[in-house]
Order: sequence, then C-alpha cells, then structure tokens
Amino acid sequence: MASIFTKIINREIPAHIVAENDQFIAFLDIMPLVKGHVLVVPKQEVDYIFDLEPDVLSGLHLFAQQVAKAMDKTIKCTRIGVAVIGLEVPHVHVHLVPLKSMDDINFTRPKLKLSQEELGDIAHQIKKGF
Amino acid sequence: MASIFTKIINREIPAHIVAENDQFIAFLDIMPLVKGHVLVVPKQEVDYIFDLEPDVLSGLHLFAQQVAKAMDKTIKCTRIGVAVIGLEVPHVHVHLVPLKSMDDINFTRPKLKLSQEELGDIAHQIKKGF
Repeated sequence: MASIFTKIINREIPAHIVAENDQFIAFLDIMPLVKGHVLVVPKQEVDYIFDLEPDVLSGLHLFAQQVAKAMDKTIKCTRIGVAVIGLEVPHVHVHLVPLKSMDDINFTRPKLKLSQEELGDIAHQIKKGF
Repeated sequence: MASIFTKIINREIPAHIVAENDQFIAFLDIMPLVKGHVLVVPKQEVDYIFDLEPDVLSGLHLFAQQVAKAMDKTIKCTRIGVAVIGLEVPHVHVHLVPLKSMDDINFTRPKLKLSQEELGDIAHQIKKGF
C-alpha cells in the first residue's frame, strides 16, 4: 500500500507543499513540533534513510538545504534543526524544525494543533524565501 | 579559539574515534543519549550545517551513511536516527543515535555516564562493522 507521503506526492491527499522537484518534495508536518516544521521526502518510497542510494541521499540533503535556507529567511528562529527518526511512517522523511531551544526538537512532547488556515499562511511565508 | 571538535581532530584532546578521512571524522559522544551515540563532524570548522558548501554537506552525509551502516551491523537497535541541532558547540555535528524508541533521541533527557572502558569497547565494536 502506498505510504501517506506517496499519497501526498500523488495528490491523493492534500498537503501544504513548500517545494518540489522531480525527485523530492517538502511540505508542512500537520502535527508540528513548532510552527514551520517541514518534512522533506524522496519521491522514491524507501523505508530507511541509510538504504537510499548515495546519490539519492546526497540529493535529498541538498534539496533540504535549499528548503532550510528559505525557512531561515522567513521563520523566526535561531536556526533550523534536522532529525530523521523513522519509527512511524515507513517512507524516508527528514524533519526540518525551526529551533529556539533544545526542547523544540523533542519528539516526545505534545504536537501543536494548527488550523488549515494557519498552515496555509506558514507555507505561503516559507515559499517567499526561495 | 578552536572548537572542542577541532581539538579532537588535532589530537589535542582524546576521543573514541570510529572513522576518519581527510574531510570528516566520527567519534563517540562522551555524553551519549544511548550506548553507541556517535558524532559525525566535518574537519572544516563551520558553525551551521546549512552554511556548508553543497559538496561538503553532501560528503558529510555520505560519510555518515557509512558510519551508520557500521553501527547497524554492530549495535543492537531498531535503526540509526539522525539529528543536527547545533545550539551548543559552534562546529557542525551530526548525531547518529541507535534507536529503539522515540525517547532515545530526546536531547532534553539526562545523558548516560559511561566509563572510558565502556566507551572504548563500544568504539571497538563499531569499527568491526566497516
């Protein structure tokens, strides 16, 4: 069965997409740790990041760098943190998390609940950073 | 002033090194979240990961992939998690953390205190995975 991220890539379920090319996509996490929490995903559906072919792994991080630079320009934070955990959705995803403190990237804390309108506004803001 | 990681690279302070080439080094975190927690560091002293030149960023993650594969072979865990935070030491470092649960990569939790002997044993174990 297609992963939830493949469904987003295929436009079967909606998402607040901030960047996309032929190999990678970036969209807002709908259960964000903080405002502006983005997921960067390879279109190829692979479960574990270290099973990616080196050129795909490299491309994924270079794409994430472009997204992070746009986030740095548009989201108030000290810097953008990176995390790859992968214990839940079996499709590689890099978390880009705007940080002010260490607790901002603590995945055990309760997630924010943002409205579609708030998420739309944040995505719109990030897209201006490219 | 040289960062603590530059001092490790220059062998001015000791560390349990598990891998090294001309551009990158990997050694055990001395305040690990879990046993086998490794830091992967570019020898070039840059504060923020997204300020790295694309070829260095790419090389860093490909080097980390090799280290993670060695860790996967030698450390008991579900998979290797990745985090880059950078609010403390101003020299890029990628955390590679053997995960069994989400809380294993929670940086707000108390760190383990391992003896030099325990750290040495873990480093020796990981090196066998290459």
